[in-house]
Amino acid sequence: MRLIRPLVETLHAYVPGEQPKIRGLVKLNTNENPYPPSPRVLRALRAAIDGRLRLYPNPTSDALRERLAVLHGCTPDHIVVGNGSDEILALATRAFVEPASPTEKKPRSKTARPPGATLVQYFTPSYSLYPVLADIHGAVRNPVPLKPGFRLPTVTDLRRGGRWRFDAALTFVTTPSAPTGCGYPRAALEALCANQRGVVVLDEAYVDFAAENALALALRYPNVLVARTFSKAYSLCFQRVGYAVASPDLVAALHKIKDSYNVNGLGQVAALASLDDLDYYRANFARVRATRGWLSERLGALGFDVTPSQTNFIFCRPPHFPAEDWFRQLRERRVLVRWFGARDVRDYLRITVGTPAEAKALLRAVRTILRR
Amino acid sequence: MRLIRPLVETLHAYVPGEQPKIRGLVKLNTNENPYPPSPRVLRALRAAIDGRLRLYPNPTSDALRERLAVLHGCTPDHIVVGNGSDEILALATRAFVEPASPTEKKPRSKTARPPGATLVQYFTPSYSLYPVLADIHGAVRNPVPLKPGFRLPTVTDLRRGGRWRFDAALTFVTTPSAPTGCGYPRAALEALCANQRGVVVLDEAYVDFAAENALALALRYPNVLVARTFSKAYSLCFQRVGYAVASPDLVAALHKIKDSYNVNGLGQVAALASLDDLDYYRANFARVRATRGWLSERLGALGFDVTPSQTNFIFCRPPHFPAEDWFRQLRERRVLVRWFGARDVRDYLRITVGTPAEAKALLRAVRTILRR
Repeated sequence: MRLIRPLVETLHAYVPGEQPKIRGLVKLNTNENPYPPSPRVLRALRAAIDGRLRLYPNPTSDALRERLAVLHGCTPDHIVVGNGSDEILALATRAFVEPASPTEKKPRSKTARPPGATLVQYFTPSYSLYPVLADIHGAVRNPVPLKPGFRLPTVTDLRRGGRWRFDAALTFVTTPSAPTGCGYPRAALEALCANQRGVVVLDEAYVDFAAENALALALRYPNVLVARTFSKAYSLCFQRVGYAVASPDLVAALHKIKDSYNVNGLGQVAALASLDDLDYYRANFARVRATRGWLSERLGALGFDVTPSQTNFIFCRPPHFPAEDWFRQLRERRVLVRWFGARDVRDYLRITVGTPAEAKALLRAVRTILRR
Repeated sequence: MRLIRPLVETLHAYVPGEQPKIRGLVKLNTNENPYPPSPRVLRALRAAIDGRLRLYPNPTSDALRERLAVLHGCTPDHIVVGNGSDEILALATRAFVEPASPTEKKPRSKTARPPGATLVQYFTPSYSLYPVLADIHGAVRNPVPLKPGFRLPTVTDLRRGGRWRFDAALTFVTTPSAPTGCGYPRAALEALCANQRGVVVLDEAYVDFAAENALALALRYPNVLVARTFSKAYSLCFQRVGYAVASPDLVAALHKIKDSYNVNGLGQVAALASLDDLDYYRANFARVRATRGWLSERLGALGFDVTPSQTNFIFCRPPHFPAEDWFRQLRERRVLVRWFGARDVRDYLRITVGTPAEAKALLRAVRTILRR
C-alpha cells in the first residue's frame, strides 16, 4: 500500500530565498526591511518573556484583531490573523477552491478541467508561491500573463485575450506586484474585483511602500480579501504574523479551517506593539522609498533597465551579460540578490532596497563587475 | 456563484479550551505545565530580541532538527518541525489521506465510502481534534471505541470487532491517551503498527509524563510517525513548536506541503535552549508525577472514580451529581477544569495537574461542593 498521496509525491517543495550565515554579507535577496523593529516593540517583547510562555496564546489573536479593526475602520469579524500572510494565502486556497478528485484522469487539453474542480488564477509573473499552493491542494491553475512592461491588463484586455476566467474560484493579485515592483491603481483593481465572480485575494505584502492601497475594496466587495503582513513593513519576518481583511463570511471560513493556535503569542505581542508606534514605521517607509529612488537612478545610469518600483525592492534587467551571471558575480562579492529561473523573468534581478550603506555596497560591486 | 466550498460551509470550528483572564483563577483546563520555562530558555529568548527579528527564520528549523536528531539517535531527515504538533497532525492528514471528491454523493451506509477516498481512523475517546482535521480535509472518518476502562484493544480484539480498518490511510493514536490519561505499553503499540498498512501517527504530546515512550517505532517502521510537542512538557505553549520523527520519506512529504516559514524564529530559539537544560525539565516532570499521584489519591478518597494517569492531567468521574454540574460549580469557585459533552466522556472531568498549591485549591473547592 502507498503511504503518501500520489499528489504529494509529485510535488516539488517551494524554495524560499536563501538565508545564509555569511559574515559581511549584504543580504538583498528576501525583501526584509533593513531597519529593526521599533524600540517599543523590543521592550514589549522583553516584558513578555517570563513564566507566561507556558500558557496557550489567544487562539484567534483577539486583541490584535480589535486593534486592526480600529486601524482599518471595520469590526474584528472582518479580520483573521495568520502565521505570516503565507498561511492566509494557503487557507484561502483550501477554503475557496475545489481540488480535482484523485480518481479523475488528467484532462486532455489545458483548458479542460476535471468535473467539480475549480480554478486558482493569477498573473505571471507574480508571487511564485501561488502555483505551489494550487499544486499542494490538487487544484487546477490558470496563469495569465501580464501585459508588456508587467502592466495589469484591463477587464477589456482580459475579455479579449480569452484566457482569463471570470468564474475562477480564487484569483490572486500581488499588489503592488512581485517580483516586478509595479504598482496597480486601485481603480483598475476595483474594476477587476467587480467583474470576478469568485474570491479575489489582493496580496498587499508590500503595500506600505506604495503610493496607494486597495484595502477599502475588502470592505466594499463580498468577494475581496486583502492580505497584509507584519514581516516586511514592520520588520517582523522572524515572528510570522500576517492577516486578512474581508467580509465576515470569508473570514469565518478561514477561521474554521485554521489550526487552533495558529499564531504564536510573542508574534501577537510584537504586532500589537508595532501598531502603537506607527510613526516609527512610517519614517522607515519614507527612508526606504528615498533609497529606492536614488538607487533606481544610479542603476539606470549604469545601464540597468529598471522597472519603476512601488515596493521595497527593485526589479531590473542588467546590461551586457545574462542576469544569472550577474547574480553569481554579485554573490562572489558578498552581495546577495534574487534571481528567478522562470522564462518570463530570467533576464532580471530582484534587489531588495537596503540601507543607504547596503545600496552603496551593491553599487560598488556592480561597478567592479562592469569594469572587468 | 458560491464563494466558499460547501465542505467548509458545513464545518464547525474546533473549540479549544478557554483561555480566560480572570484574576485568581486556578486554571486546570488546558494541560499547560504549571512550571515556567527554564531560566536558560528565558535568557536565550531575551538575547534574541533585537534587530534580527526583521530577518526570516530558518525555513526548516535546521539547527533544532540537528539537536533533536542527536537526542533521538537519528539524522535530521527523520525530523520535521511544526507550528505546534497540531500543525504536524494537520499536515499528516493532508499528505497521507485522499479526500472524497466534492462531486461524489455521500455514501448511503456508514461503512461505504466514495471511490478513491481513504480513511482517517482513531479511537474514541481520544484527541477531539482528529475528527475536525478529517472534516476540514473532506476525508472519511473511522472512529473505533476503546475497550471498557479506556484500554487499548489488541490486534485480535480489533480483528474480531470488525470495525477497525487495517488499510486506513492514517491512524491516530494518542499515547499516553487524552482525555483519559491512560498509558499504552510500547509492545501493544508495536503490534498495532506492524499490522497497519497505512500511516500510524503516535501522538506523544504527553509522553514526558509517562513511564515509557514509543519513539523507537518511528525509526523501525516506515509507516510510523511519532508526534511530539514543546508545549506541555517544556512549558512553551505560547511559542508553538512541535515536531515529528518518522522515516525520511514521510518527513519529506510533510516538508513539501508545509508553509515556507512555518515555525517562528523565537520558537526555534526557545526549543533549542530547552534541549540545553533537560535536567531542569526532568525535575519538573517528576514534580508533576508526584502531585498527580497525591491528587489522584485524595480525589479517590473523596469518591471520585480516577483513571490511572500517565499524563499531566487526571480523568475522573465525580460522585453524586453530573460532571457538567461539577464543572460549573468548580468554575463558580474560580477553579477551571475541562468537561467534554461527547457521550462517551460526559460523565468525566479532565483536570490538569497543577502545582501542589493549585491541587490544594482544587481539593478545597471540591470539599466545599461536597458539603452542600
